[in-house]
Amino acid sequence: MLDRTDFLAKWDKRLEWPLACVAGIFLAAYSVQVLAQPSGIARAVLSAVVAAAWLVFAVDYIVRLAVAPEKGRWFVRHLLDLAVVALPLLRPLRLLRLVILFGALQKAVGGAIRGRVVIYTAASAVLLIYVASLAILEAERSRGDAVITTFGDAVWWSITTVTTVGYGDYAPVTTTGRIIAALLMIGGISLIGIVTATLASWIVQRVAQEDAANQVATGQQIQQLHDELVELRIAINRSQMVRAEGFEPPTAGV
Amino acid sequence: MLDRTDFLAKWDKRLEWPLACVAGIFLAAYSVQVLAQPSGIARAVLSAVVAAAWLVFAVDYIVRLAVAPEKGRWFVRHLLDLAVVALPLLRPLRLLRLVILFGALQKAVGGAIRGRVVIYTAASAVLLIYVASLAILEAERSRGDAVITTFGDAVWWSITTVTTVGYGDYAPVTTTGRIIAALLMIGGISLIGIVTATLASWIVQRVAQEDAANQVATGQQIQQLHDELVELRIAINRSQMVRAEGFEPPTAGV
Amino acid sequence: MLDRTDFLAKWDKRLEWPLACVAGIFLAAYSVQVLAQPSGIARAVLSAVVAAAWLVFAVDYIVRLAVAPEKGRWFVRHLLDLAVVALPLLRPLRLLRLVILFGALQKAVGGAIRGRVVIYTAASAVLLIYVASLAILEAERSRGDAVITTFGDAVWWSITTVTTVGYGDYAPVTTTGRIIAALLMIGGISLIGIVTATLASWIVQRVAQEDAANQVATGQQIQQLHDELVELRIAINRSQMVRAEGFEPPTAGV
Amino acid sequence: MLDRTDFLAKWDKRLEWPLACVAGIFLAAYSVQVLAQPSGIARAVLSAVVAAAWLVFAVDYIVRLAVAPEKGRWFVRHLLDLAVVALPLLRPLRLLRLVILFGALQKAVGGAIRGRVVIYTAASAVLLIYVASLAILEAERSRGDAVITTFGDAVWWSITTVTTVGYGDYAPVTTTGRIIAALLMIGGISLIGIVTATLASWIVQRVAQEDAANQVATGQQIQQLHDELVELRIAINRSQMVRAEGFEPPTAGV
Repeated sequence: MLDRTDFLAKWDKRLEWPLACVAGIFLAAYSVQVLAQPSGIARAVLSAVVAAAWLVFAVDYIVRLAVAPEKGRWFVRHLLDLAVVALPLLRPLRLLRLVILFGALQKAVGGAIRGRVVIYTAASAVLLIYVASLAILEAERSRGDAVITTFGDAVWWSITTVTTVGYGDYAPVTTTGRIIAALLMIGGISLIGIVTATLASWIVQRVAQEDAANQVATGQQIQQLHDELVELRIAINRSQMVRAEGFEPPTAGV
Repeated sequence: MLDRTDFLAKWDKRLEWPLACVAGIFLAAYSVQVLAQPSGIARAVLSAVVAAAWLVFAVDYIVRLAVAPEKGRWFVRHLLDLAVVALPLLRPLRLLRLVILFGALQKAVGGAIRGRVVIYTAASAVLLIYVASLAILEAERSRGDAVITTFGDAVWWSITTVTTVGYGDYAPVTTTGRIIAALLMIGGISLIGIVTATLASWIVQRVAQEDAANQVATGQQIQQLHDELVELRIAINRSQMVRAEGFEPPTAGV
Repeated sequence: MLDRTDFLAKWDKRLEWPLACVAGIFLAAYSVQVLAQPSGIARAVLSAVVAAAWLVFAVDYIVRLAVAPEKGRWFVRHLLDLAVVALPLLRPLRLLRLVILFGALQKAVGGAIRGRVVIYTAASAVLLIYVASLAILEAERSRGDAVITTFGDAVWWSITTVTTVGYGDYAPVTTTGRIIAALLMIGGISLIGIVTATLASWIVQRVAQEDAANQVATGQQIQQLHDELVELRIAINRSQMVRAEGFEPPTAGV
Repeated sequence: MLDRTDFLAKWDKRLEWPLACVAGIFLAAYSVQVLAQPSGIARAVLSAVVAAAWLVFAVDYIVRLAVAPEKGRWFVRHLLDLAVVALPLLRPLRLLRLVILFGALQKAVGGAIRGRVVIYTAASAVLLIYVASLAILEAERSRGDAVITTFGDAVWWSITTVTTVGYGDYAPVTTTGRIIAALLMIGGISLIGIVTATLASWIVQRVAQEDAANQVATGQQIQQLHDELVELRIAINRSQMVRAEGFEPPTAGV
C-alpha cells in the first residue's frame, strides 16, 4: 500500500509539467478550432490534437484511479479530476498549476497566502471567462435562434454571467450552452466568494491588530511565560541546593 | 415535563427514517405527477400518495407541537417545520437528512465540519433546483402567457435564479410561480452565503496557521504551562519538607 | 454639556414608543393612500396624517441636533436619522425598534447576538420590501410607459431587486422610482451581506470548537492558571513563615 | 538603494496633494466635456486639460518606475498605478486619497478601521458610479443602436451594474462600453465584498464579546500572569535572602 501511495506521488510530480503542456496545447488547438473554424486537413489535425489531449487526461485519470489504495475514497476526493476528463470546459484549468511556477510573481507577492489567493483568483477568472467564451460560442452559433454568435458577444456574456450581473441581453438557448452557463455561474459564485472571504480575512486581521487592548494572546507570549517558569524553577532548585549546602556548615560547626 | 422532552426525542429518532422515506415517496410521486402528467387512475393514485405524504407530515407536526412543553417557544423555533407542512416545495428538503447516512461519503470527507457543510450545500442546491423546477413548471404551464413551459426551461430558470444571475429570458408570471421564485431566491442567497462563509473560514484558518510568529495561544499550550506550575509546586513542597527534615537534626543536635 | 447629553438620553427614551407609534400610523396611512387611492375627504385626511408624521420626525431631528453638544460630529453620526426625515421610504424603518419589545420572540431566540441578527434581518427585509413596493407603485403608476402598475407587480419587482436577481421583466422608468430602486439595492446588498456574515461567524465558531487540539486559549483557562499561581505564592509565603518560626526554636534553644 | 527608496517616499509625499488636484481637475474637465459637449475653443481647451492630466500621471508613473530599486517587483506591485495611467475611468480614483484629509470626518468616525473602511467604500462607490456613468455615456451615445443616451440613464445603468442586479433594460453595445462595464462589475463585486466582510468582522467580534465564558485569552491577561510570576520570583529571592541572613545568627551564635 505504501508503494502505491509512493507511486502516485511520483506519478503526480513527474507528470506535473507534461500535463500542463498538454492542457496548454489543448487550449491552443481548441481556440483555433473555435475561432478560426478551419476546414480540410487543418480541421482534422486540430480534432486529432484535441482528442489526443483528452486521451492523455483520461489515461492519467484511469492510471491514478487504478493505483489508488482506497478507490472509493479516492473517487469521491477526486471528482474534480473526473470533471476535467469529462468536460472540455474544465480541462484548461490544469494550466492554473503553472501559476506556481512563475518565479517573478511569487517573489513579488511573497509567500503570503492572501497574495497567492489573489493571483490564483485573477488567473482562474481570466482562464474561466476565456474558455467559457470559446465553449459557449461553439455550442450556440450553429443554432438559428442563438444570440451569441461572435467571440466578442461570447466574452461579454461570460463576464456578465460570472459576475452574476446577468443583463439578459445575451443568453444561451441550447442545452449544451446552458450546461456551460451553469458551470460558469458556479465558478462565478466561487470567485465572488473568494474575493469576499479574502477581504473578510484581511479586515478581521486589521481590526484585531488595531484593538491593542484586547489583543489575542499569542503562542509567543505563552512561550515567554514558559521561559520565566523554567527560570523560576531553576531558582527554586538552586535555593534548595544553597540551603542544603548552607545547612551543613552549622551542623558541621556544632 | 421531562417525560415530554423524552417522548419528543424518541419520536424524532424513531420517525427519522420513516419520514425520510415519506419525503422520498412524495418527491417521486410529485415528479411523475408533474413530468408525466398522467390521467385517469394513475392521476388519482398519485394525488392520493401526495396527499397522504402531506398528512403524515401534518400529523407529525401537530403531535410534536401538542407534546412540546413550551408551546410558544417550540412554535417559534420550529417555523421551518411548519413551512415544510405548508409548502410542498420545502417538503423534500427532509431528504437532506439522508445525506448523513451515506457511510461512504462520510468516510471520504472525514468528520470535518467544512467537509460536511460542502456536501450539505451541494445536496441542498441540487434538491432545491430540482423541486423548484417541478413546482414552477406545474404553476406556470397552465397559464397562456407563461414562458416556462418545459422541464428543461424550468431547470434553466431555477439555476439562473438560485445563482442570482437572473437573465430574465424566463420569468414566472403567476402568483404561485412568483412565491416559488421568492423562496428559491432566499435559498440561493443562503447557498451563496454558505459558500462564501466556508471559504472565509478556510482562508482565515490558513492565514492564522501561516502567521507562525503571531499564532494564537492554544488551550494545549496553557495546559503545558499548567503542568509546569504543578511541578513547580511539588518542587516547593518538597523543598519545604526537606527543610523541615533538614532543620530537625541541628535543633536535635544542639 | 453633561446636561445636554442627559437631556438627549431622556428625550430618546421617552420618545421611543411615541415615535414608533407615529411610524406605524405613517405606514398605515401611507398604505391606504397608495393601495386604496381614496378621494375627497379621506384623501385629505390621509395626506394630513402623512404630513403630520413627517413633521413629528422633522421636529425630533431638529431638537436633537439643536441640543447635541458636538453638532458636527452628531450630524455625521446621525446621517441615517436625516435620511429617515428626508425619505418617506426609510421612515417606517423606525418600526424595527419594536422588534426588541416582543418578549416572546426574545425569549425563544435567547439573548444570543446571532439570533437577534437573524430576527432583525428578517423583519427589515419584510418591511423594506413592503415599503419599497408601496413607494415604487406610487412613483411609477402615473407614468404612461411604466410596467409596474399593480401592487403584486411592485412586490415581485421589490423581491427580485432586493435579492439582486434582477430579471428585468419589471424595471422602474421614473427618476423617483429609480432612486427608490437604488435605495432598495443598497438595502439588498446589506441584507445579503448580513446573511453571509452571520453564516461565516457561525462556521468559524463551529470549526474552532471542533478543532479541539488547537482550541484557542480562553480567558477562563488563564484564570485557572492565575488561581494556581496565587496558591503557589501563598504556599511560598507559608514556607517562609514556617521557616521563620522553625528558625526561632533553634536560636531560642541555643 | 536606500537613497532611491528615500527619494520614492519623498516623491510620493510631496506629490500627494498636487496629484489629487490634477485628478480633481481631470474629473471636472472630463465631466464638462461629456455632459456639456462643448464645441470650438472650449472643446480644445478641455481636451488639452484632460491630456495634460494624463501626461502628469504618466510622468509620475515613469519616474517612480525608473527610480524603483527592484523594477520587476515594483511593476507587479503597482499594476493599479499602471491601470490609472492607462484607463481614464480609474484616474479620478486618486481623489479617494483626499478622504483621509477631511478632519471632520476622521474625528466623527474615530480612528477605528471599520469606520474608515465604511467611509472609503461609500466614497469609492459614489465616485465609481459617477465616473462610470460619464465614461459609458461618452462611449455609447455616438452609436446608433445604443440605449444609454442620457446621463440619467447612464447613472441608472451604473447603479444596477455595480450592485450586480443587472435588469438588462439598459446594456452597453460598444466594445469600449463593455470594457467599462466589466471594470464596473469588478468594482461592484469588490464593494459588495467589502460590505459583507466588514459586517462579518463586526458580527464575529460581537459574538466573541458576548461569549464571556469562552472569551479568548488576551495579551493583557497574559501580562497579568507575567506580573504575578515576577512577584513570585521576587518573593522566592527574598525568601532565599531571609534564609541566608536568618542562617548566620545561629551559626554566629554557636
